[in-house]
Amino acid sequence: MQFKYLNLIRETNPLVHCITNIVVANYTANGLLALGASPLMSANVAEMDEIPAFSQALLLNIGTLNGTDAEAMLAAGKRANQAGIPVVLDPVGVGATSYRKNVVNRLLSEVRFALIRGNAGEIAALAERDWQAKGVDAGSGAADMREAAKFVAQKYGCIVALSGETDWISDGARLVGVHNGTPLFPRITGSGCLLGAVCAAFLGVADKRDYFAACVEACTFYAAAGETAAETLLPTQTGTFSTALLDQLAAMTAQQAEEKARVSDE
Amino acid sequence: MQFKYLNLIRETNPLVHCITNIVVANYTANGLLALGASPLMSANVAEMDEIPAFSQALLLNIGTLNGTDAEAMLAAGKRANQAGIPVVLDPVGVGATSYRKNVVNRLLSEVRFALIRGNAGEIAALAERDWQAKGVDAGSGAADMREAAKFVAQKYGCIVALSGETDWISDGARLVGVHNGTPLFPRITGSGCLLGAVCAAFLGVADKRDYFAACVEACTFYAAAGETAAETLLPTQTGTFSTALLDQLAAMTAQQAEEKARVSDE
Amino acid sequence: MQFKYLNLIRETNPLVHCITNIVVANYTANGLLALGASPLMSANVAEMDEIPAFSQALLLNIGTLNGTDAEAMLAAGKRANQAGIPVVLDPVGVGATSYRKNVVNRLLSEVRFALIRGNAGEIAALAERDWQAKGVDAGSGAADMREAAKFVAQKYGCIVALSGETDWISDGARLVGVHNGTPLFPRITGSGCLLGAVCAAFLGVADKRDYFAACVEACTFYAAAGETAAETLLPTQTGTFSTALLDQLAAMTAQQAEEKARVSDE
Repeated sequence: MQFKYLNLIRETNPLVHCITNIVVANYTANGLLALGASPLMSANVAEMDEIPAFSQALLLNIGTLNGTDAEAMLAAGKRANQAGIPVVLDPVGVGATSYRKNVVNRLLSEVRFALIRGNAGEIAALAERDWQAKGVDAGSGAADMREAAKFVAQKYGCIVALSGETDWISDGARLVGVHNGTPLFPRITGSGCLLGAVCAAFLGVADKRDYFAACVEACTFYAAAGETAAETLLPTQTGTFSTALLDQLAAMTAQQAEEKARVSDE
Repeated sequence: MQFKYLNLIRETNPLVHCITNIVVANYTANGLLALGASPLMSANVAEMDEIPAFSQALLLNIGTLNGTDAEAMLAAGKRANQAGIPVVLDPVGVGATSYRKNVVNRLLSEVRFALIRGNAGEIAALAERDWQAKGVDAGSGAADMREAAKFVAQKYGCIVALSGETDWISDGARLVGVHNGTPLFPRITGSGCLLGAVCAAFLGVADKRDYFAACVEACTFYAAAGETAAETLLPTQTGTFSTALLDQLAAMTAQQAEEKARVSDE
Repeated sequence: MQFKYLNLIRETNPLVHCITNIVVANYTANGLLALGASPLMSANVAEMDEIPAFSQALLLNIGTLNGTDAEAMLAAGKRANQAGIPVVLDPVGVGATSYRKNVVNRLLSEVRFALIRGNAGEIAALAERDWQAKGVDAGSGAADMREAAKFVAQKYGCIVALSGETDWISDGARLVGVHNGTPLFPRITGSGCLLGAVCAAFLGVADKRDYFAACVEACTFYAAAGETAAETLLPTQTGTFSTALLDQLAAMTAQQAEEKARVSDE
């Protein structure tokens, strides 16, 4: 595959407005800065009319919703739709509680998303298939992840990126598998959340008609960066991997990522 | 001593529901993942009825209480008691303000705790002894820490783990000292908070009648991991120690921890 | 230049009360601990009467204001003024939204600040000059940063530290340039926010009549620590730099910083 958007991010530093959870806010900001994008974190309802108007993308991550966060997400999402910038949904742990299901249902009915990014358990919950989800972690189950990604993409009319050992990306018609990665990804908190933000940055510099390619590029770049970061590490060096992943997000060139990419059209 | 629970955590990945402070949420989540447990962070009152029902342990850390956090803690604590899962209290800076004292008093009167984990200043504040506490840091004072741990354990009918150069663990009758550790622990934020979460994970896989042994194992494992992480570091490498501690929490085996353990029955 | 306050911080461990944003709370706490100060993070209105009374300095950082944070800042700021401890304002992204402008205006009219620390875009917004600010990042523009620092210092009757490739520090009459630093600073989140907290620690151990020298020392120490941390790193090692900066904040001696310092009286 050929990379189109990585260099554009590094040249134009798109501003990514993130309404994200308190666990990963710092790591997400550092990851976006390493990549070459600019993070802006605000969940204040009073700012939701202005910020999407000067941002290039919006990320809504429901990991630790509290107070007026859900309202802020709705307001920011609608405003981002008006402004024509891409909106990414990360439905963290959506299968875990009825509150999360309700918020996600409301977001999905009132905001147009360019992308939903989640793990197998979360995408399965959106597919309303039987899936053994365990809290906010990925869980494991019998459903076919490829089918789940495609089904949810059709159901909500957007792209779906299902993260796991293989990432499956579908727009309801096309289905692409990204086979890069490392078992260290699920050993650190926020590796999925950061991928959602990275996708937002790629979408933020892409043309609307090319959003699918931008998502595939984002997932491939991220998985290749993690794979490279892990190459010299033991499987237990989880702390070191956190740091090394940031370094790779900053260091990896488009050419290196292209050479590393193991992507399949299904 | 012989380790019973570390491998069980790594085999069963207990889900630890943490209501904790914004400063350490990320480090706590990464520490639990490194150890082999699964973190779930939520302080949303609307989720407090469901989450304890599918969690293996609950941690209540009052470090940056705000909004409806105290209500969420009360609701989650009561629900966890109903569900029969262990609840850990980390009374961060309880001696510092009357608000913290009031919240902790209410938690202690309405929720049954398996463990209170704190530093010398915090345990002394609960003992209502004279103790020179300084903000949320440990402070120093004349009171006998061993006596304070035992006294607070008797007063509240639970285990107390008092963290410091030596960790003192008491259930009101027994008293054990864990002499492992490193001066780098108090040089990073959240090293005590993470220990509280690690204790919750150990309690989450233990039988109720064996909670005391599980706490001693948790404190010993954590102190030994920190000691090992610090072995090749200068006393000023505080940033590097943060990362190295996570690596050790993932790498250290039960056998290594047993060999390293310096534990005394008092 | 000769350092007066660094050793005093390490000897007396001043307690710095931080009301800061959720993105940098952890890094700020770790940075203050590395330096030798003690962080206390609380934005709970119910604690704002007590905490400033036993703190040595107060930091107000508006990066992710939400809920009752602005009220807490006003209450803490007024109480800190009563208690006679220095208050530092970090007006993160003040040019980005009208909400931030309003909060900052209210803070500036009701609280006496010892120091305002911001990047070029933020200080320019306070100067009400035309300046191309982009979200919460520094942006770039034509205005003279030295003049902006001096003008804002005069306008608000306090010290201003404008952070950038060169840091400009002015009390309205004097103007000092700190020429140390590294391009890695803006590649990690919270490097400016942490500097605000570091300045608060230096002010917390200084005599009121010597606040200007304390700010210059703080900015010089911080920039020199970053410069040293970056010396062996590639420009893309952003994650490693985060960690190395903490190590240097703990390791660098007054003598090393003095030798490294490139400070100009303008």
